[in-house]
Amino acid sequence: MALFPESLENLINALSALPGVGIKSAERLAFYLLSCPPDKAARLSEAITRARDKITRCRVCQNLSEDEVCALCASETRDKTAVCVVQDPKGVIAIERSREYNGLYHVLHGALSPTAGVSPRDLTIEELLTRVSAEGSAIEEVILATNPDVEGETTANYITGLLKPAGARVTRLARGIPVGGSLEFLDDRTLGRALEGRS
Amino acid sequence: MALFPESLENLINALSALPGVGIKSAERLAFYLLSCPPDKAARLSEAITRARDKITRCRVCQNLSEDEVCALCASETRDKTAVCVVQDPKGVIAIERSREYNGLYHVLHGALSPTAGVSPRDLTIEELLTRVSAEGSAIEEVILATNPDVEGETTANYITGLLKPAGARVTRLARGIPVGGSLEFLDDRTLGRALEGRS
Repeated sequence: MALFPESLENLINALSALPGVGIKSAERLAFYLLSCPPDKAARLSEAITRARDKITRCRVCQNLSEDEVCALCASETRDKTAVCVVQDPKGVIAIERSREYNGLYHVLHGALSPTAGVSPRDLTIEELLTRVSAEGSAIEEVILATNPDVEGETTANYITGLLKPAGARVTRLARGIPVGGSLEFLDDRTLGRALEGRS
Repeated sequence: MALFPESLENLINALSALPGVGIKSAERLAFYLLSCPPDKAARLSEAITRARDKITRCRVCQNLSEDEVCALCASETRDKTAVCVVQDPKGVIAIERSREYNGLYHVLHGALSPTAGVSPRDLTIEELLTRVSAEGSAIEEVILATNPDVEGETTANYITGLLKPAGARVTRLARGIPVGGSLEFLDDRTLGRALEGRS
């Protein structure tokens, strides 16, 4: 005899397929979804369907968007001479929150990783090259803002190698000590980079 | 400007409304649901809707069921003279796993808790009393298997006070169960012993 009714088993299985959700969490979530107000469960179900239906990638910057061209790329007030290359949509949000940048973006949707099997074809590097060459001298600077880890560095180096010959000005985010931190808790490499790049 | 497209914001909000899911987890889950194969996202969305549509409470034992009377209550092979009262559907599963019990169940869907505002009206105690009095002497024993914590003990004592005057034989799981635990996390043998030694 099945332990739970079939539709409940299905729900638990679908939930436990989510990343970071184990079987016990999935059971807890399933019971919650059964006992919560009906509109709350319906809201989640519809939100999944609607997000899948509506969200596509911006034709220009490849960021997630409900329109063919996203609001940032379509904006009249953004500086179109700079393109900041980030790994994912959260990178865009992080940089927007800093309020220090008014240019455009390019979202790679990942970083190169031979171990995880992520090759240049899995990222939007091709689209970035096409965009830079199509815009010609309209793009004056490409800022590489990949994550400061092995995969991010590898990706940045790879893209630099492709863009430099094309004559584009390629910059990287400065390395140094984070604002508000304490020297004693910094790792050696960060401190070393901060000393190297002192100004 | 909104940080994410509206439908993505909605999805993140709906996910972060789940118990134990913070905003960062919700973002991670939302990005996963956008990038996973379409059928996987659809499966979760449909599983939620279908579980809400199909699952109701068994008319007899109040356990979750897709039918008016659940498979356990409808079974010809179960001992209909015993009713084991548990707090939730997971309690039924825990006891079934012990393979020491072949009677029926009654699911309370909670435990009395003045602090959490759970009163007898919020549980299926009324249904239990009606069931016991309607069956008359057909039910020879009511086994109280609430969780061995304060709320569970309170609930068991409350139900005992209601059933004893009606002449029903009321037993409790033996004190083999560790105090402060929850039925669903107990191992099969401990549960089996507790059933054997019920008093």
